[in-house]
Amino acid sequence: MELGIIGLGKMGGNMAERLRRGGQTVVGYDHNPEVSDVSSVEELVARLSPPRAVWVMVPAGKPTHDTVHRLGEILEAGDIVIDGGNSHYVDDQKHGEELAAKGIGFVDCGVSGGVWGLENGYALMVGGDEEYVKRLMPIFETLKPEGEYGFVHAGKVGAGHFVKMVHNGIEYAMMQAFGEGWELIEASDVVTNPVETFRSWEQGTVIRSWLLDLMNRALADDPHLEQLRGYANDSGEGRWTVQAAVDHAVPLPAITASLYARFASRQEDSPAMKVVAALRNQFGGHAVENAKGADAPGADVEPPTL
Amino acid sequence: MELGIIGLGKMGGNMAERLRRGGQTVVGYDHNPEVSDVSSVEELVARLSPPRAVWVMVPAGKPTHDTVHRLGEILEAGDIVIDGGNSHYVDDQKHGEELAAKGIGFVDCGVSGGVWGLENGYALMVGGDEEYVKRLMPIFETLKPEGEYGFVHAGKVGAGHFVKMVHNGIEYAMMQAFGEGWELIEASDVVTNPVETFRSWEQGTVIRSWLLDLMNRALADDPHLEQLRGYANDSGEGRWTVQAAVDHAVPLPAITASLYARFASRQEDSPAMKVVAALRNQFGGHAVENAKGADAPGADVEPPTL
Amino acid sequence: MELGIIGLGKMGGNMAERLRRGGQTVVGYDHNPEVSDVSSVEELVARLSPPRAVWVMVPAGKPTHDTVHRLGEILEAGDIVIDGGNSHYVDDQKHGEELAAKGIGFVDCGVSGGVWGLENGYALMVGGDEEYVKRLMPIFETLKPEGEYGFVHAGKVGAGHFVKMVHNGIEYAMMQAFGEGWELIEASDVVTNPVETFRSWEQGTVIRSWLLDLMNRALADDPHLEQLRGYANDSGEGRWTVQAAVDHAVPLPAITASLYARFASRQEDSPAMKVVAALRNQFGGHAVENAKGADAPGADVEPPTL
Amino acid sequence: MELGIIGLGKMGGNMAERLRRGGQTVVGYDHNPEVSDVSSVEELVARLSPPRAVWVMVPAGKPTHDTVHRLGEILEAGDIVIDGGNSHYVDDQKHGEELAAKGIGFVDCGVSGGVWGLENGYALMVGGDEEYVKRLMPIFETLKPEGEYGFVHAGKVGAGHFVKMVHNGIEYAMMQAFGEGWELIEASDVVTNPVETFRSWEQGTVIRSWLLDLMNRALADDPHLEQLRGYANDSGEGRWTVQAAVDHAVPLPAITASLYARFASRQEDSPAMKVVAALRNQFGGHAVENAKGADAPGADVEPPTL
Repeated sequence: MELGIIGLGKMGGNMAERLRRGGQTVVGYDHNPEVSDVSSVEELVARLSPPRAVWVMVPAGKPTHDTVHRLGEILEAGDIVIDGGNSHYVDDQKHGEELAAKGIGFVDCGVSGGVWGLENGYALMVGGDEEYVKRLMPIFETLKPEGEYGFVHAGKVGAGHFVKMVHNGIEYAMMQAFGEGWELIEASDVVTNPVETFRSWEQGTVIRSWLLDLMNRALADDPHLEQLRGYANDSGEGRWTVQAAVDHAVPLPAITASLYARFASRQEDSPAMKVVAALRNQFGGHAVENAKGADAPGADVEPPTL
Repeated sequence: MELGIIGLGKMGGNMAERLRRGGQTVVGYDHNPEVSDVSSVEELVARLSPPRAVWVMVPAGKPTHDTVHRLGEILEAGDIVIDGGNSHYVDDQKHGEELAAKGIGFVDCGVSGGVWGLENGYALMVGGDEEYVKRLMPIFETLKPEGEYGFVHAGKVGAGHFVKMVHNGIEYAMMQAFGEGWELIEASDVVTNPVETFRSWEQGTVIRSWLLDLMNRALADDPHLEQLRGYANDSGEGRWTVQAAVDHAVPLPAITASLYARFASRQEDSPAMKVVAALRNQFGGHAVENAKGADAPGADVEPPTL
Repeated sequence: MELGIIGLGKMGGNMAERLRRGGQTVVGYDHNPEVSDVSSVEELVARLSPPRAVWVMVPAGKPTHDTVHRLGEILEAGDIVIDGGNSHYVDDQKHGEELAAKGIGFVDCGVSGGVWGLENGYALMVGGDEEYVKRLMPIFETLKPEGEYGFVHAGKVGAGHFVKMVHNGIEYAMMQAFGEGWELIEASDVVTNPVETFRSWEQGTVIRSWLLDLMNRALADDPHLEQLRGYANDSGEGRWTVQAAVDHAVPLPAITASLYARFASRQEDSPAMKVVAALRNQFGGHAVENAKGADAPGADVEPPTL
Repeated sequence: MELGIIGLGKMGGNMAERLRRGGQTVVGYDHNPEVSDVSSVEELVARLSPPRAVWVMVPAGKPTHDTVHRLGEILEAGDIVIDGGNSHYVDDQKHGEELAAKGIGFVDCGVSGGVWGLENGYALMVGGDEEYVKRLMPIFETLKPEGEYGFVHAGKVGAGHFVKMVHNGIEYAMMQAFGEGWELIEASDVVTNPVETFRSWEQGTVIRSWLLDLMNRALADDPHLEQLRGYANDSGEGRWTVQAAVDHAVPLPAITASLYARFASRQEDSPAMKVVAALRNQFGGHAVENAKGADAPGADVEPPTL
């Protein structure tokens, strides 16, 4: 079928390519004229036959909002907008309502797959009305991996990004689990082969997984991870997961701990721990030489020689 | 090669079977005479030619300790004891020293694989001297899964059980991650197909893993997990992981959160939360009718009609 | 000085009373005519001489929003609105801008003190322009406790509710700390006098505090807290604290753990732990009789008799 | 009454002084002859009239163990040993049994108070048989603060150190709570007076406490805590608290988070977060220039100009 794509960056460009290889007709627009098939969003819309489908693949937040809003102005009733970016599910609901008022369909689609998606396919998580999702199935079928899985119509508008967000939250905790295990093993006196240990776990264990494979690939290059700092950004979706948990009164201790570990990894120094250090100092009275706290075992009692 | 096995329960029995199928010679002893090849540990030792290798596959703690100690009395210098149970790595070090004093080798072996190990092989994590591990390689080769991985000589005595313990700690956090993600998705208004969502994740996602496969198998049978209570035992190895973390001053927030979630899952009521409830009551003064706390937004301010 | 108060519930009514006892002139409006001095917000405004000050003491969210918005329509430039409710600091910023556009001042004020505030005074945390805060000082001086502390001009519009929110977050973790300590002591075999222990801590310890006093008051009435369920609501401010932490990339592990403990306390059963239970079941294969996991120490190895 | 004290360091020396000021007779021994009344433990025992009471105030672990063991050799049935150090409650139980076998009483006593104990008294938490505790009451009465509280006979041998340990665990979480609150307030755009805010909380709030007073004292000297690094040791008792929690299957999320925050504060870099960073790198494929993960919102989608 025919699809317009707005945003031909690393993801959008590869997705367009996979769709073309799969026999779909793609008209792409990007602010970079070298990769663009048309010179404007208006021209893109004009090039598609109604009922149109336009896939938005631009950064979450204002760029997505502006693009969806503009499409609402120039598309016609019966057309569909797909937000394939990493939008917050709360924004989907606003976009869906805005477009619905004009008879335009809205489908949100969480996409996983990274640079390997072009060859292996993209895992797709979709939210929206059955009617629109059905019409888009040729697109989804071409983008998804071969095989039984890798696509779900998860629910109403917002559901696609919601479950993609939760997928990322789960990912945070799984990554943290491997990190914690690695750190404890590295701290051990008795384990001398940590790299071989993680490698061996690829078979026969309960924790075998794609993340374990990736970790072993990293360890193969850099067995003590000396090339790296323990500094981890967070993608926004981890934050949204925790905020959704708080909104829904759902306790997420492991996922939240994983997000907080990332926050802490980016601090030069911890203001919170300065307070703890200051309080420990205060226990000993005003003078610095008394700073060892009375509550530290043995800090203030001296051993006699028997 | 020849191996004595003490303990022919579900695990020991299957391992003996896999070894025999693989061409090894096994003499097994169990307190249940129906599955036992010999009538006592002494007879088992007598049936093996020196230098002997005896695999202990009995519960951790006193049963393992007693068995290792007894073997120390009746084996000879040059023999090897393998502890394939789920012992605490700290106990391995004691057992290793006790046997080393008599010239007897000690190797600890963490085993993963459950009921599927007989067919698929067991992941093995081994600690001990190179000399003893080398001698036992025919046994390990037969027990482990086919392929490149599933076996590691992780380090010194105790290292096998240490890394198996950490493996289980990682597993705790991974299970918790899936649990938390499930709970948040179930709480959502927009997601109507949680089961299909998890199923779809088996392909193309970052979190694809054996645990996800197991979860989908469980959901296939019971899509809302209505047959189950949210009650989870812990195996001891999760506790040891946290205690090792504390001993080594390694922060394990996600793994510990997962262990604590299991503790909490087994409580009828939470004494800690009774205190929190009591404190909230106290804010409002003595009388029960004032129990709504002054600090609850809106609890104590009434809306006028404008 | 002269102050209008909208909302004469438990908090607003007591604050009006404390102000009158302290010599201030209060005109109060409430939707309940029995406690109201005037019959409408319009009449309240008419009764005050410009430049007016009107204290809004109604529930956070829509009631506060509607009241502030209405005041913006009927007040004049130079007047001041004070939001003394439990509003989210993000809403303050919107209200401040809306009123500033009309030359009306806005001050947010977090209030702590509960039912004891009438006699002991209210701790006040204020945000807004110096000019407005100064003009209101006679009111703040009368409301606050006697002594040096209990009042702060914390910063810009929103700062009062922001620090009150953080105060409550700190309170959550302190309450949780006492709860956890209590639970561990109750679980101990060796401690036979938990109530006397907590009571004794009121003097000479590092943890002496008003919350400890409140806890001891509760324990005096009900030494094993048998009258209570371990069920704790959260006030909203704990949630906002965690959401602000996520927005500011600040790790708050102890405060968040305390919020999650409250969420968990209100669950009949934990969907997350159902997943963990289901996964543990799956380890053992399909059949229920295999449900004890291979990874449980000793679950699948049987002790021989030596 | 008459008391022998072994260990006249900062704590032991001040306690001896407070006892003498209170009219008790103290014979002190220390390895430093300048502060010692006698030249050996043997001489100390010889100077006391039976039934004797000897207070051991030396570091936890081997020094305490050796001292208690030596006293067991030279004291007589009917004498009492008090361990006033910071011993692990598990050690108390061993010491109590060892001495009981010889008819010698054993009482463990957790002591809080630091450098201010000499003037203000020490909070005392005692474990042991009623008979021995009663006999020692004149000593406890002199050491404790004036007033109703500050002393408890908490339970059996070990109970004194158990509840002191839990007291310290609670303290960890309370300190962490203030630290977290401080950090969030410092991160805020709207709060300009964080120091005055904490100071104001000393009156009228729910979180007023001795720790808050100490924090304000620290902030008075160093308003942005610039003189301090966010580096906090732990005293051992925090670790024991978590280990006791794990042993008793009691979830302590806030206290454990506080301990882990201290562990993390002492790390130059986090091995766990290196793993997370490595995994994030791997998402982008082999090449380093692809390192920005496909799962970062917006990392791989480019905004078109509309």
